[in-house]
Amino acid sequence: MKIFCDLAADDATLTLLKDGVTPHELVFPAAPAPSVLSKSGSDPALADADIAFGQPDAAAVLNAPKLRWLHISSAGYTRYDTPEFHKAAAERKLIVTNSSSVYAEPCAEHVLAFMLANARNLPDALKAGSTGDTSSWLRLRNTSTLLRGQRVLILGFGNIGRHLVALLRPFGMQIEALRRKPGPTEGVSMIIREQLPQALARADHVINVLPASASSTCFISSAEFAAMKKGAVLYNVGRGATVDHEALLAALTSGHLAAAWLDVTEPEPLPSGHPLLKVPNCFITPHITGGHRNELQMLVRHFLKNLPLFLEGAPLQDRVM
Amino acid sequence: MKIFCDLAADDATLTLLKDGVTPHELVFPAAPAPSVLSKSGSDPALADADIAFGQPDAAAVLNAPKLRWLHISSAGYTRYDTPEFHKAAAERKLIVTNSSSVYAEPCAEHVLAFMLANARNLPDALKAGSTGDTSSWLRLRNTSTLLRGQRVLILGFGNIGRHLVALLRPFGMQIEALRRKPGPTEGVSMIIREQLPQALARADHVINVLPASASSTCFISSAEFAAMKKGAVLYNVGRGATVDHEALLAALTSGHLAAAWLDVTEPEPLPSGHPLLKVPNCFITPHITGGHRNELQMLVRHFLKNLPLFLEGAPLQDRVM
Repeated sequence: MKIFCDLAADDATLTLLKDGVTPHELVFPAAPAPSVLSKSGSDPALADADIAFGQPDAAAVLNAPKLRWLHISSAGYTRYDTPEFHKAAAERKLIVTNSSSVYAEPCAEHVLAFMLANARNLPDALKAGSTGDTSSWLRLRNTSTLLRGQRVLILGFGNIGRHLVALLRPFGMQIEALRRKPGPTEGVSMIIREQLPQALARADHVINVLPASASSTCFISSAEFAAMKKGAVLYNVGRGATVDHEALLAALTSGHLAAAWLDVTEPEPLPSGHPLLKVPNCFITPHITGGHRNELQMLVRHFLKNLPLFLEGAPLQDRVM
Repeated sequence: MKIFCDLAADDATLTLLKDGVTPHELVFPAAPAPSVLSKSGSDPALADADIAFGQPDAAAVLNAPKLRWLHISSAGYTRYDTPEFHKAAAERKLIVTNSSSVYAEPCAEHVLAFMLANARNLPDALKAGSTGDTSSWLRLRNTSTLLRGQRVLILGFGNIGRHLVALLRPFGMQIEALRRKPGPTEGVSMIIREQLPQALARADHVINVLPASASSTCFISSAEFAAMKKGAVLYNVGRGATVDHEALLAALTSGHLAAAWLDVTEPEPLPSGHPLLKVPNCFITPHITGGHRNELQMLVRHFLKNLPLFLEGAPLQDRVM
């Protein structure tokens, strides 16, 4: 079998992959993708492949005559998440899996890092450093908060949300969540779309993990910000397009939102001079929630766990189509 | 009964305290302490008191003829933790309690905020902000780590340690701890002093919660840094004097330690121009771990929980002598 792979991998990772797929053959594009999140162009090597692993061009995937399984090297899969792709994939029985298991833990840890940095005033406190100034010291102490007992609302509850809920459990927080396909999860109250305004009004922390899609564009806009409790904090680790950034700016500058912590923005990156870059209560990291030291190796191991399942015709992990 | 209180409290907190102690009488020093951590001077009001709540002068406490209970408004109690004070308190049957229950949760949350900020590269990532620079983006992702599965060593295991262990449990970490009076704690391997070098060599995260005392001065010095694993991270939320700051500087500049996160230093604050202020892998907050928005009210509530126990002669919470 031929496995197309456009992952920009180091030698050790490639060796792990080659050893793992033996006796099957790896085929590579002329130019690999610059990162795990970048799409590669259409490539003749794909036309010959049975399996694709990485971020191949969506149209090229659908045109690849032999392809039976696409394993996406990211958790988000916006470029494949169109009605046309879903329909074409279903018609030709193309199995599509993503790497959400690999990214769920780093994303959940990143969100909790955001939440605790916010509660414990870390940006200001690290700036103050070793200060002897009593008034700034008192201000830092008196504005520090605890996560214990607070209320959380998770929008787009999936793999990341489940990991996050596990990390939040010892804080005794009250957790509500909204998801496309509701289902019971221990310790989480699932809400439906109609209950969103009430849930937003209760939450101290609104955590947005929504993927980008036609239905999630500007999911959080002025009406949703207005529904939020004064002093709430918004975290976005989903996709930037799901938040109306003008409405976000207004909610931050009016002080209605206490702060926003964003790992994703729209556009991404924000152009220099963008007003959100100057708002003191807006904290931005450059789309790194999913990253970790062993990311490539973990992506490969995840693919290699799915490979024998695919060959046996067994259900695959993280199947999305 | 007369209750001496030198807490620098706002009106709402004072009302809470006054209402809570009725029918007993509150007496105040001429000048209240500037903060919950500052010691107040010797004061004539103390000479008349049965109970003291705050940070009264240690010698004045021992000279107060009627005093039967001292409730310290902090977790640390270095100024009372001398052999002379212990002996004199025992002789006159003075009960001494501290406020460690109030500070355990914010301290534990602050330590986890430090650990996650370190793992997720928050200081650098927030500085990078919304960047389109691929090389800094890749560096941030590739140097991010996960807490999951890592090893932790807690020095000075007590109330804070127990709260921290509860927060760390979902990360599946391996936790060892050293304490003065060993006792079993679920999910934690207690070590004795002789096992310290081996435990230091195993730990990815060394968390110092040691109180200051004659026996803990420079507890972590060059030998302990040398015993640590290369790439380990030190967190200090105990007292600055328990760490040899010259040895710390050497361990940070050589790169043997990946980073240090300090909420306490020696001296405190560090004088401007101190070399630790210029080391890029040293992160300092100004002694705020215990702080939180409702700190004073929680201190008063904790005292008010102990008051009826004291009046009944029942065992008090957080008794230290």
